[in-house]
Amino acid sequence: MTDSPHFNLDLDGDTLREECGVFGILGHPDAGALTALGLHALQHRGQEAAGIVTFDSRQFHSERHLGLVGDHFTDPATLAKLPGTIAMGHVRYSTTGETILRNVQPLFAELEVGGIAIAHNGNFTNGLTLRRQLISEGAICQSTSDTEVVLHLIARSRRQSSSDRFVDALMHLEGAFSLVAMTRTKLIGARDANGIRPLVLGDLDGKPIFASETCALDIIGAKFVRDVQNGEVVICEIQPDGRITIDSVKPFAPRPERLCLFEYVYFARPDSVVGGRNVYGARKRMGINLAREAYIDADVVVPVPDGGTPAAIGYAQQSGIPFELGIIRNHYVGRTFIEPSQSIRALGVKLKHSANRAEIEGKRVILVDDSSVRVTTSVKIVQMIREAGAREVHIRVASPMITHSDYYGIDTPDPEKLLANQHADVESMCRWIGADSLQFLSIGGLYDAVGGRPRNPLSPQFTDHYFTGDYPTPLTDLDGSTRHEPRQFALMREAG
Amino acid sequence: MTDSPHFNLDLDGDTLREECGVFGILGHPDAGALTALGLHALQHRGQEAAGIVTFDSRQFHSERHLGLVGDHFTDPATLAKLPGTIAMGHVRYSTTGETILRNVQPLFAELEVGGIAIAHNGNFTNGLTLRRQLISEGAICQSTSDTEVVLHLIARSRRQSSSDRFVDALMHLEGAFSLVAMTRTKLIGARDANGIRPLVLGDLDGKPIFASETCALDIIGAKFVRDVQNGEVVICEIQPDGRITIDSVKPFAPRPERLCLFEYVYFARPDSVVGGRNVYGARKRMGINLAREAYIDADVVVPVPDGGTPAAIGYAQQSGIPFELGIIRNHYVGRTFIEPSQSIRALGVKLKHSANRAEIEGKRVILVDDSSVRVTTSVKIVQMIREAGAREVHIRVASPMITHSDYYGIDTPDPEKLLANQHADVESMCRWIGADSLQFLSIGGLYDAVGGRPRNPLSPQFTDHYFTGDYPTPLTDLDGSTRHEPRQFALMREAG
Amino acid sequence: MTDSPHFNLDLDGDTLREECGVFGILGHPDAGALTALGLHALQHRGQEAAGIVTFDSRQFHSERHLGLVGDHFTDPATLAKLPGTIAMGHVRYSTTGETILRNVQPLFAELEVGGIAIAHNGNFTNGLTLRRQLISEGAICQSTSDTEVVLHLIARSRRQSSSDRFVDALMHLEGAFSLVAMTRTKLIGARDANGIRPLVLGDLDGKPIFASETCALDIIGAKFVRDVQNGEVVICEIQPDGRITIDSVKPFAPRPERLCLFEYVYFARPDSVVGGRNVYGARKRMGINLAREAYIDADVVVPVPDGGTPAAIGYAQQSGIPFELGIIRNHYVGRTFIEPSQSIRALGVKLKHSANRAEIEGKRVILVDDSSVRVTTSVKIVQMIREAGAREVHIRVASPMITHSDYYGIDTPDPEKLLANQHADVESMCRWIGADSLQFLSIGGLYDAVGGRPRNPLSPQFTDHYFTGDYPTPLTDLDGSTRHEPRQFALMREAG
Amino acid sequence: MTDSPHFNLDLDGDTLREECGVFGILGHPDAGALTALGLHALQHRGQEAAGIVTFDSRQFHSERHLGLVGDHFTDPATLAKLPGTIAMGHVRYSTTGETILRNVQPLFAELEVGGIAIAHNGNFTNGLTLRRQLISEGAICQSTSDTEVVLHLIARSRRQSSSDRFVDALMHLEGAFSLVAMTRTKLIGARDANGIRPLVLGDLDGKPIFASETCALDIIGAKFVRDVQNGEVVICEIQPDGRITIDSVKPFAPRPERLCLFEYVYFARPDSVVGGRNVYGARKRMGINLAREAYIDADVVVPVPDGGTPAAIGYAQQSGIPFELGIIRNHYVGRTFIEPSQSIRALGVKLKHSANRAEIEGKRVILVDDSSVRVTTSVKIVQMIREAGAREVHIRVASPMITHSDYYGIDTPDPEKLLANQHADVESMCRWIGADSLQFLSIGGLYDAVGGRPRNPLSPQFTDHYFTGDYPTPLTDLDGSTRHEPRQFALMREAG
Repeated sequence: MTDSPHFNLDLDGDTLREECGVFGILGHPDAGALTALGLHALQHRGQEAAGIVTFDSRQFHSERHLGLVGDHFTDPATLAKLPGTIAMGHVRYSTTGETILRNVQPLFAELEVGGIAIAHNGNFTNGLTLRRQLISEGAICQSTSDTEVVLHLIARSRRQSSSDRFVDALMHLEGAFSLVAMTRTKLIGARDANGIRPLVLGDLDGKPIFASETCALDIIGAKFVRDVQNGEVVICEIQPDGRITIDSVKPFAPRPERLCLFEYVYFARPDSVVGGRNVYGARKRMGINLAREAYIDADVVVPVPDGGTPAAIGYAQQSGIPFELGIIRNHYVGRTFIEPSQSIRALGVKLKHSANRAEIEGKRVILVDDSSVRVTTSVKIVQMIREAGAREVHIRVASPMITHSDYYGIDTPDPEKLLANQHADVESMCRWIGADSLQFLSIGGLYDAVGGRPRNPLSPQFTDHYFTGDYPTPLTDLDGSTRHEPRQFALMREAG
Repeated sequence: MTDSPHFNLDLDGDTLREECGVFGILGHPDAGALTALGLHALQHRGQEAAGIVTFDSRQFHSERHLGLVGDHFTDPATLAKLPGTIAMGHVRYSTTGETILRNVQPLFAELEVGGIAIAHNGNFTNGLTLRRQLISEGAICQSTSDTEVVLHLIARSRRQSSSDRFVDALMHLEGAFSLVAMTRTKLIGARDANGIRPLVLGDLDGKPIFASETCALDIIGAKFVRDVQNGEVVICEIQPDGRITIDSVKPFAPRPERLCLFEYVYFARPDSVVGGRNVYGARKRMGINLAREAYIDADVVVPVPDGGTPAAIGYAQQSGIPFELGIIRNHYVGRTFIEPSQSIRALGVKLKHSANRAEIEGKRVILVDDSSVRVTTSVKIVQMIREAGAREVHIRVASPMITHSDYYGIDTPDPEKLLANQHADVESMCRWIGADSLQFLSIGGLYDAVGGRPRNPLSPQFTDHYFTGDYPTPLTDLDGSTRHEPRQFALMREAG
Repeated sequence: MTDSPHFNLDLDGDTLREECGVFGILGHPDAGALTALGLHALQHRGQEAAGIVTFDSRQFHSERHLGLVGDHFTDPATLAKLPGTIAMGHVRYSTTGETILRNVQPLFAELEVGGIAIAHNGNFTNGLTLRRQLISEGAICQSTSDTEVVLHLIARSRRQSSSDRFVDALMHLEGAFSLVAMTRTKLIGARDANGIRPLVLGDLDGKPIFASETCALDIIGAKFVRDVQNGEVVICEIQPDGRITIDSVKPFAPRPERLCLFEYVYFARPDSVVGGRNVYGARKRMGINLAREAYIDADVVVPVPDGGTPAAIGYAQQSGIPFELGIIRNHYVGRTFIEPSQSIRALGVKLKHSANRAEIEGKRVILVDDSSVRVTTSVKIVQMIREAGAREVHIRVASPMITHSDYYGIDTPDPEKLLANQHADVESMCRWIGADSLQFLSIGGLYDAVGGRPRNPLSPQFTDHYFTGDYPTPLTDLDGSTRHEPRQFALMREAG
Repeated sequence: MTDSPHFNLDLDGDTLREECGVFGILGHPDAGALTALGLHALQHRGQEAAGIVTFDSRQFHSERHLGLVGDHFTDPATLAKLPGTIAMGHVRYSTTGETILRNVQPLFAELEVGGIAIAHNGNFTNGLTLRRQLISEGAICQSTSDTEVVLHLIARSRRQSSSDRFVDALMHLEGAFSLVAMTRTKLIGARDANGIRPLVLGDLDGKPIFASETCALDIIGAKFVRDVQNGEVVICEIQPDGRITIDSVKPFAPRPERLCLFEYVYFARPDSVVGGRNVYGARKRMGINLAREAYIDADVVVPVPDGGTPAAIGYAQQSGIPFELGIIRNHYVGRTFIEPSQSIRALGVKLKHSANRAEIEGKRVILVDDSSVRVTTSVKIVQMIREAGAREVHIRVASPMITHSDYYGIDTPDPEKLLANQHADVESMCRWIGADSLQFLSIGGLYDAVGGRPRNPLSPQFTDHYFTGDYPTPLTDLDGSTRHEPRQFALMREAG
């Protein structure tokens, strides 16, 4: 067994941050196994590590592993180490190779009043500022995860109960968070004031559940109750008589909800219902609107799998051009994607995708992709499609162009590395990619596809800052970092 | 490091056998890495283990690992252990949990005339008979793989050169085989007299390649030259002056080719060209013919992913009913599928599939699947679709019903366990599955989709014994086993 | 990679505590590798885990592993991860199977003024009391090691420099400690006011070294400079101009030194010089004094290997009875001792020892052992010697009987489990063991052997509480725990 | 799981060969666990790998692991995989780093008449010749172990029963072997015609046992029955009625026994009785004779631990010079010894030994070692003793100088690398080592110490070829290899 402690890391402060998934259940005899299943359904939100904490009315138990949920948590021996009727878990993604076990959530602290575990989806925009302040007050940080500051805020709160301390800690946080916490009797779910990241409340035979997406309820046959609201803290508790109570607190100043549009465009699983809207349907409508806005005559509509498939189906249905699997995805890439060798990386996208020549050769191809995130991929795919004999290659992207970085838990490049900032216009971008034409869905087309209404510029219904620059919260760390030694604590930074 | 040698196995003689994939390249400085890539493209033919052997003009090198190609062979340290300009590899699938490293191919033997490595896709129908005979003559078998008998036959051949010995050994074999072999100067590819399993000859900058499917050529940018013919042995050799010669031998009595139809129905990757026919196109035509033979009025055509997708696209195009992703596949199942815990296994198909409720609820659904192999899956999927609110569920299977077991390397149940043999008719089967209707593609419809011509009953163009009982070769082991102690060597049996 | 976090432990609050070893070096280009060698020489002080921290003038590096130093830290790849000219390390022993990586020292904290690492040999008698207080003030403890409280005390100190903070933290500690600490420029060694645990200052080409014993200096060819004095803090620092300064601070109220006698009796390596006295010589004199005090006529003097060998040589020389290897030790027991299976454990001592029958049969045997710690072992050894045909078996123990538990880092049973407290007198003990006679060295004989002078009862020259009950410090945790809920934090308890 | 098959090895044909240990038991319900214990007692004969095979009246079970017996075979889970009442095992040592699992014994073959497992201590002097012949006849060798040729000879025998086949195979073998074999009903022990390697027959409650040394009987409380005689094959069999029969066969032409003297000098455990003589006693007598032959006035007699200790005790008793532990051995070297890093290796002997300065400084030291095998060690030890302040250093070696290589399983250098062949005389050798004097025990002194009688030059009572060049058997491989392509099969060569 080995250990590379956090002070050995050399993380780039500009490093990308990605999504995570959270799950918790209260009062069920199979709480640990159900949490493993819930996390499996949320695996698309984080493939690098997973953790589960349970409480068995005597002590807390924890298992945290690098790798997929299915790699570790389907092992009966592992589940046997997670007894109890309260459980919560977390899946995590990190773009660095430096992931270390002590960063894997849930994080735990033994307080005077008993233990508390927390798991976080999102990113605090004042995380480094808080960390710096806590260290100056004598706190010892063991992880490089921003989430740990919440633990320290809880530990230092002067409030009495663990749930009061939890709410107290939330008051210091800026940015995006859907948090699940757990004590000896409580399971708590909380969403930030804007409700940037999703969190739903479910029910399995009367036992409350929190999950990032509804697909985690479906896998265990649980009912969807409602979304946790923006700015809401929902506290489920087992009472001494065994009854389960559910309370709701709204400690923050009220704000309109602004769910992250990228959940619809990219992150959420197509069968999930996010903010009351089916994700597959929204994506298909993005394709329909894209066909309306950016029709071109062609022989086949080919999705860039798997993200582009629903929009491609929509585009094909709207345009009447046949939908064909012109690109085949290799589903066994597995670990390769995470840690490729240099020589294999040079071969690039072909490890994951291959052209289905018979459907491409001699044809005018419309490639439908979900977003402009992975431009390198686009360049290589266009090249692959051309080598397979396509007569024309037209790219249609089912979301607007990304023009600003995200600071709420999504993996976006630094501003200067964004495709939009490296090209004068879409035409230059198109030439660089090597396509015959390139068109993006408009922001209006996206709002229509997701919410059925135009964007309200005074109070947008969603957060769309990567497309518009309209950030829903202050960016304290970022602003601070431009002023005083921004990189000093850079090595401590990593998001959940 | 541990080892459970073969005599500790308790394999069931009736155990299922599955496909494998083979790849080899002669004369290329990156032979090892290119073989790793070729195997990666063939990963769908075997996910349990992979092996590569190279020769660097001084000695043979070998790496064999349980797991995916991408788990091990993308590691530069592993590739560094595979130097040389001749390389070959194998991916393997086994349905038992007993897979052991010594069964992982390529297998190797040091002969008087130098070393020889072999890799096998297929199954010998007289493998146990040969093994029994070899043991009685003093051979010591180290693996439980049928492929090892080829090594012993080569070692015992009285012929002089290693390629002559290889051909000599082939003369003893019955059944299905696409074999690749390698000596210090030669790379050899061979197909059985019926050409049941595929094998193609490719070319990368003048260097010959053998591969199970063309997709392994595409991934490294190699050209497809031609299929190795049924009954043909192709011998590529580096001459002392560095030139590469390619010879062809046809040692067997000539027979018409009978490629396995299941390659088109199920095994081969959609972008591969097998026997001169694009697999995706063939599958889509199966769906088109299915819509012609078994049309029903409905609201959506939903593929059982991923196998059913091409046929569902064909069915939807032919019928005019919209194609929708009504079932979402979880791509992170990974290891779970291989070794599920008992409790997780009980939850069944939901780990891999979930209903996309918004596209199902209140609708009449046509489910299109590729074959009738996994009935349990069908039952659970119908149940899942019904729970998601489908008004009607109609199953359309894009191949005929399986009525006979396969003995050529495909995982089919024993005859008595086949769905066809447990139900009086399709209606009873349909009731058991819980569908509103159930229809299979006819054998004629399948022949038309794959070959464009009706089945010639006197000399079928393909082998279709699982649908018709018309086996293309003797079944020596099976016949023998009904006579004298068939199970005695059962524990030795496993297929490649 | 897996992780069983501390709240999953089920440690017994009464669990045994054992010795550890520390090493540090400042200013040497091979600091990491030299520390590995130093720890290897100190391996007898802790075999369960080892850790090294280095600083390379840019950042801290750390490697911590379960197992022997030679299992991990001889690997060039591991040493390559430990660059820098300042290094320190720790070897650790724990009798529980629950050892977890996060308890392995050195422990590290990132302070406002920079990082600090610490390693501890000894045990705080107020560790739990301090931990409880720190948690009530909002500290989050990540390990179950008492040593972590020092880190928190340092982090919370209001002093400016890291060395001032370190000294500040020491003022809160009771009990036994030899501590080594390290910052970006300093290496610090400290001994508690009584000097219970040893710590020496060495010198390699002008570079200062701290080590638990002189044998760690010998292995790298370093010179012994002097003992760190009881109550002394020695601060070595690299100045900006590269010079190394060495300062000494004595922050505690002065007290006479009371080194732990068990270092001479049992712990220290025979070739070490502890407190100015050669350990092998002291042990041999214990055997000489034992022969004077407890002579008996016999045929052979047989050591219980390896601990009893020096005293047996002394006994044989003094008594004139031949010294023979009547018990052979199996040196390959290795891991077996750490984690035996139940069935193997039942076979007991024979795994480690076997009788050398030819030297035993028909003889009157004097068995010489070092201490009365492992009575079960004695019982089994006597039985083994009798089965080998001994005519008489006389046990002579080269130290007094243990009558009180230790709380300063030595593995001693709870008071009620001590052999002395389970028998009315030595005769009853002798009968239980099955020996013909049993005698212990007197406390006077021990003082004479170690220090050459009688025990000063008003101010004993050593701490000898396990023999006399005369504890050199308050026992705050123990006293407190008898009053209020002693077991509440029991799970947090573990010693270094 | 990984695998580097044998053809990847780059073994040097001149490589050293070392001892092994074998154990077997018939008819005991705990056969597997008892074999693990027996192997643990034989661990000194081979530390690199261990294996056990059992038969449970239904099938054979096998566990083979690299590492110590105590690392793997004390695990109840491992023992649970070894059910049955017949068991045998093997411990193995190899000086190469290339040890691979497939070379770990027992080796196994499935014959027509059922399975057979064999384990071998010794080395065949015609092993390569046999291997070459077997390969030319079509045998496929899977290991690089000479022992495998026995399996092939058994498999090819025309005899009927497995024990007849085993005896048949023995007739082809030259050199040294103590073999244990096992079938479904039999346990067989065999020694070569000269009886070079030891093998004893034991008894535990009526169940027969074979073991390399008596210490393996002692650990499980079994009785010593007798030595298996040179040239004898002892066949123990469970009869259908449960009775155990023991037969003896002497298939070879009769020869006088010539046990290997190195068993007494170096290999066997001191508490073992080999050839009816206690090893510790023999070694002590070597020391006594050495003091008689090579007395010198000095202050202390210091053993080079642990091998030199018994002879040093004898030397001290005979000479009247005090015996002291002037060199302390570090017992935690463990794995370091097996695979040291280059930088650590350069530090040499100090990892294992350290000078006990207090017993050395200012003294005239007699160092007693067991043999002249490890000269490099001597050089470093003399240097270490001098650095510790010795006034004089005199080396006394308790066996004659090695002048010839061994080919029967002992690790000796090639002739040209032997110390004896690199120096004109003992004085030159002494200067090179840096000692003040150097003396070896005479061959006569050794014979007297071991057997009590002078060497009979016409028919020596032991084999002593490394001292005298008088080889007891032909050296077929060696002679052949000087004539035709000796290195061709060199890579196949490794000893058990």
